[in-house]
Order: sequence, then structure tokens, then C-alpha cells
Amino acid sequence: MSGRRVADLLADLEPVGRDGGTGGFRRYAWTRDDHELGSWFEAECAARGLAVTEDRAGNQWAWWGDPDATPGRAVVAGSHLDSVPDGGAFDGPLGVVSALLAVDRLRSRGFVPARPIGIARFVDEEGARFGVACAGSRLITGKLAADRALGLADADGITLAEALRSAGRRPDDLGPDPQALARIGTFVELHVEQGKGLIDLDAPVGVGSDIWPHGRWRFDFPGVADHAGTTALADRSDALLGLARLVLAARTAAERNGCLATVGKTRVQPGGVNAIPSAATAWLDARGSAEEAVRAALADLTASAAADGGVITEESWTPVTRFDRDLATRLATLLGGVDQPAPVLGTGAGHDAGILARAGIPTAMIFVRNPTGVSHSPAEHAEPDDCEAGVDALAAVLADLASDS
Amino acid sequence: MSGRRVADLLADLEPVGRDGGTGGFRRYAWTRDDHELGSWFEAECAARGLAVTEDRAGNQWAWWGDPDATPGRAVVAGSHLDSVPDGGAFDGPLGVVSALLAVDRLRSRGFVPARPIGIARFVDEEGARFGVACAGSRLITGKLAADRALGLADADGITLAEALRSAGRRPDDLGPDPQALARIGTFVELHVEQGKGLIDLDAPVGVGSDIWPHGRWRFDFPGVADHAGTTALADRSDALLGLARLVLAARTAAERNGCLATVGKTRVQPGGVNAIPSAATAWLDARGSAEEAVRAALADLTASAAADGGVITEESWTPVTRFDRDLATRLATLLGGVDQPAPVLGTGAGHDAGILARAGIPTAMIFVRNPTGVSHSPAEHAEPDDCEAGVDALAAVLADLASDS
Repeated sequence: MSGRRVADLLADLEPVGRDGGTGGFRRYAWTRDDHELGSWFEAECAARGLAVTEDRAGNQWAWWGDPDATPGRAVVAGSHLDSVPDGGAFDGPLGVVSALLAVDRLRSRGFVPARPIGIARFVDEEGARFGVACAGSRLITGKLAADRALGLADADGITLAEALRSAGRRPDDLGPDPQALARIGTFVELHVEQGKGLIDLDAPVGVGSDIWPHGRWRFDFPGVADHAGTTALADRSDALLGLARLVLAARTAAERNGCLATVGKTRVQPGGVNAIPSAATAWLDARGSAEEAVRAALADLTASAAADGGVITEESWTPVTRFDRDLATRLATLLGGVDQPAPVLGTGAGHDAGILARAGIPTAMIFVRNPTGVSHSPAEHAEPDDCEAGVDALAAVLADLASDS
Repeated sequence: MSGRRVADLLADLEPVGRDGGTGGFRRYAWTRDDHELGSWFEAECAARGLAVTEDRAGNQWAWWGDPDATPGRAVVAGSHLDSVPDGGAFDGPLGVVSALLAVDRLRSRGFVPARPIGIARFVDEEGARFGVACAGSRLITGKLAADRALGLADADGITLAEALRSAGRRPDDLGPDPQALARIGTFVELHVEQGKGLIDLDAPVGVGSDIWPHGRWRFDFPGVADHAGTTALADRSDALLGLARLVLAARTAAERNGCLATVGKTRVQPGGVNAIPSAATAWLDARGSAEEAVRAALADLTASAAADGGVITEESWTPVTRFDRDLATRLATLLGGVDQPAPVLGTGAGHDAGILARAGIPTAMIFVRNPTGVSHSPAEHAEPDDCEAGVDALAAVLADLASDS
């Protein structure tokens, strides 16, 4: 194992779920590609002599040492392997790959952990298929009820329950897993930065302070289907006009209130070139460093949509998530020294680490510099040297946390 | 057969391709439902002792008399059975059903045609699956090249060639069919009106004068995929903003120029809730009684889209189609009398009748009153009495045209 680098392991994964046209990845929960990702993880762990267990959501945990011998003391590093539609190679996999390589480095220097060390691979972090992000960590922490999860449907109308059965799994297994959580003493997620904070700070790695408050809302606009070639303008009720006004209003509201607001997904029905839209749905993603700003933007948009008969539904809302401050300070000092600690910075992106932190588990994040800030895109990138610096940082953090018995 | 009414035959077809949720029909070319529609047509013709032949595009022709005995003299009535997404029960089927019933009425009164009478069922009129309207009639008249047609792909990426093979057909058969066209002396298409012209005129049936010039254009807007939760507004290139401006500009341009312009179909990529759109495509349908108005609206939109980096592609353009004026006058007089001829009116909708007219075949249309004007919608309707008046009108027209040997 020793001598392998981040680029080698990412190259192993490259064929899985890659779209030849866009060059991006389409690795969605409980598909054949997802199964292949899980098998790859298992094989990598087996090659290191690490036994892999699964929790009630299907998240995978590999153990160096016995986490049940000293409950609540394990130090776990991990992330996810699934992607958004046409996502990049780093968002998720970098954290899993770095955890595997950090263990290799600790072993090659003869490190003997005083606490069990775990490597976690969370399932369905992006929510690309069933619409709920961080589904794997939300399920085991009870933040997502199994009944609700099983009823979620993908774009083809296949429910999560059906998808699990197709993947050879038992939907009944789904549920909170306090036993799996009880093993964890500290959780650390390494992730490519999604933004340009570390570029501006000229640092290859940084430590997470908090996750911005963020939410998703669905706007449904009504219309009346009719023939586009024969219906007078005055007789029309075109659902797409309301959606178009919302898309533009979202940008304006974000500018005015100093936050982010994006429509990334839409649905127009019936969807015929010569049919006036009878229904149009837009999904809004809004976030910001301050909750008040996000709420103010949302109020603007609610008023704008109401004028078009739009109905707004909150699909999710997550208040600000603050990572353990003492832990963040310890990591920043460890990585940069007392005089020049590593940068500590917030992020607008949600992560499984945030879900675990909200469940009361001492949690930290390590970010690796992203030269363009671009993420959720085939163009997402991190320089090889920065990736190796990330592995070194994670190895140092695991060694530090697992030395203290 | 005698004694059956329009409502009875439409009821026979009701289960085919009906969506339980919307109540609309999703009858797309070369699907299982489409096959069922063809089998139904064959069975109805067989029950009337009419042999069914197919042309090189798969359009079906049932014959009362031998059209090859007296080439170029047959009188043919017909329409299509496929639908737009969530279409109504009348657009298409009313014309086929009325042709079957008109033959029944002629026979029940002992009519003996001096010319062969045909009933046609055209395939793929709406273009809902492969994007080209009137594909069946365009193919046999050579207005749509077989090579281009075979390469058209549906939303799942299945080409027409593959769809034909799946339906057990030979893609090589596709092509112009002058022999099939040479049989036709006159073609008459009865259709539910898509608009409120006959309501305003207080008449159950009318005769077509022309089809407005109409076209379809695709607008492709560029963007850069990125994470919606972490990318600063200033760093974004969001393809959906251009699309939204186009949707609103289309309405304004139609109002300003006195024509119709509609965006009914859109595509947003990658389509993740938390991904900034990297590409957005809108399909524009534009029509009007005057070509200059449509062209002026299009010029407005081209300028608007260019400001957002949008690229415009003309997918189809059909100039005004005038039906045979003498034939229209003959039908109007026949149906209403010399003193009060039936109304003669234009339409914004395209039809197979228009394609045949452009190919030089003497062609007429009969419209049946639509109480709301609504079409391309599950709410599309025609009153039973008006439908029967349509059958009577079509029977009278066939008798008139087929008496003259």
C-alpha cells in the first residue's frame, strides 16, 4: 500500500459512473455504479486488513482496532463517494482516499494507535437521486425518518424502498443507529474546498469553523395546458412565465440581501414544444453566512412568486452548524504551529460532518485548496501536491487524536 | 357498425396511453400504445370489410374500392391517433373516427361511390417523441429525408431507427412514397377546432382556408457548472438566467408584433438542486397570420438571447399553407348552402393536411366546434352533437366528391 498517492486511488475510481460526453461523474445512490464504489472501498480496506461493517443506513465503517472494546473513543475519518449530476472527481472521494492513505502513512512509520481508528464511507451524501442530501448520516442520527426516506422517489418514480430492494438490500433495516454512533469519539472529514478561501489565504489546507445556514424550497406555478399555436395571448395561463420571473428574482434577492440563491433544477409540464406549460416547478437553494439574510431573500421571493400564483414548500432547512471550537483550534495549531495556525474558515456546503456535529459528536473538517474554487462540475480540481498535503495533515490529526488514550 | 356514434369509438380508445394522474393521453410514435392504436384501426377497418395497406412511413390506408384501378381519383379522409404529452381525446382521433363513421353512414343509405374512398391514419403527427411534427406525411412527400428522420432521438436517446426496430419494423423501408400519393385525388381532414373561431361564429362546423406560417427554434444558453452553495454571485455564469429572460421576452415580443410565441419545452443541465446550471435550452414555437410579424418577433428574441450568449437554431419553418380555394368554396357551399355557406377560417395549428396540400394534392379541412377553444390538454372537448354534425358533414363531402366519376 505504501507509496501510493491520491492521484493513483482517484484514477482507480475514474471509470465508475463517468459520462463520456461531459467528462463528469454521475454516481447516484443505490445504482450499479454505487455498488461498485462500495465494493472498491471494501477491497481497499481488505487489502489493509481492515474489517468493514455497515450501519442501518448502509454507510460503511472500516476499523483499525476494535471500536467496541472502548466505546465512544474511536477516531474516525471519512467522507462519501457519490456525486451530483456531472460532478467532479474530488468532492467526496478525496476524503475517503485521503483517510485510506493517512492510515498507510501512520503504519509505514510504525504508529500504534492508543484508540481505534475508523474510515467511514457515507452513502447518498449528495441526494442527487432522491432529493435529500446527507441521507446516510441523517438516517443513522434520526434526522431523516426511515418511513419518509423509503417513500422518496427518483425522477423515474422509483422509490428508495424499491431501489434498496433492487440493490439486494432490506428496506426494513433503515433507521437510527445509536450503536454505530456510540463508537465514535471524534469524526474528521477531509474535503476539497468549494470556494476560493484557501487561495486567498495562500494555504494548502485549512480547518472548518462552521457550515452556513442553508435550505431548499420548491416553487410550484400553476398554468392551463393549451395549444401554443392557437391560443390567444390574452386567453393564456402560462406556468413558465412565473418560473422565469422567480429565476431572475432569486438573483436579485441574493444580491440585495448579501447571500446566495440559485435555481438549479426545474420541471415544466407537459413539456411539449407546442403546448402551453400547465405546471412549472423550480427548486431554490439558498444559503448565507447569516440566517437573517437568507430569510430576507426568501421573503422577497415568496412575495414575487405569490403574484404569479406560485406555492412555496420548504423541503429542508438547516440552521448554522458550528464545529467543535476547541477541536478546530487544536487542529489548526497542530497543522500550522502555535505562531501561525492553519486558517480556520466556514463553508456554504453541507456535509455529513455537519450532520454528525449536530448530533453531538465532536467533529472537525479539513479543507484542501481548490485552485479555481469550482466544484460540482467536471472542472473541479485540486493540485496533486495539495492533495498530498491533505493526506499528511489528516495523518497528523489522526495520530494526535488517537495517541491520547 | 351502423348506429355507433363518435363517443362510442372514442370510448374504445380511451384506455390506450391514458395517464391516470393527469387524465391526459401520452400516445407517442412507435411505442406499445401506438401499436395498439394501429391494431384498433386495422380491426375497425376489417369489421367494415376494408383492406388496410401501409405506405413507406407506416401510415395506414383503408380502401373502399380499388385506388389503383383509377389512379389519382381516390377521395381520402383521415387524421392521426397519436398525441402530445397529456393531450386530449379529440385532437387526431376525432378525424379518424369520423371518417370510419362517415363511411358507415354512406353505406347505411346505400351510397355507391363512383370513385374509391379511403380512410387514412397518419403516424407521428404531433412529433411528441422525436421532435418533428407530421413526420408520417413529411416522409412520404419527401419533406423529411429518411436519413435525417432515422437519426432523430427521443428524450432517452433512442433513435427513430432503434424505435422502428423495437416495433418490429424495417428502418430501410422509410422514404418518399410517390405511389401512395398518386392514388389520392382529394384529401379531407376533419379536426377539432383549436381555438374559438366557430364559437364566435355560432357554427358547429367550418372549412379550413389556410395554416398560419409557423416554426420552431432552439435557444442554447451557455453557463459554467459550479456549487450553488459556495460560488460567489460575481463568479457565476448561470445558464438559466438567459433562459428565463428569453421566456419573458417571448411573451413581450409576441404582444408587440401581434403573433404567438411560446416556450413549452426546456432543458437545464446538470439539473441538480445545488448545481449552478451549465447549460439551458429553450424551444420556441412562434406563429401568426402574417409571416412578417413572426419574423419581427424572432428578430427581437435573437437580439435578446445574443446578449446572454444564446445560440439560436431554426429547427423547422413552414410558410403559410393555403388550402385549395375552389375546393374550400365547394365544401362551404355544400355544408351551408349558397346563401349561407359554412364559415371558412384559418388555423395556427399544423396538420398532415397542410403537408399534403404543400405537396400539390387538392386538400381541405373541416373543423368541429370546440366550446372552450382548449386543445393539447386533458380538458380538450367537443360536444357530442357537434361531433355528430362533423360526421354528417364529412359524409356529405365524401358523397359529393366521390359521386363525380
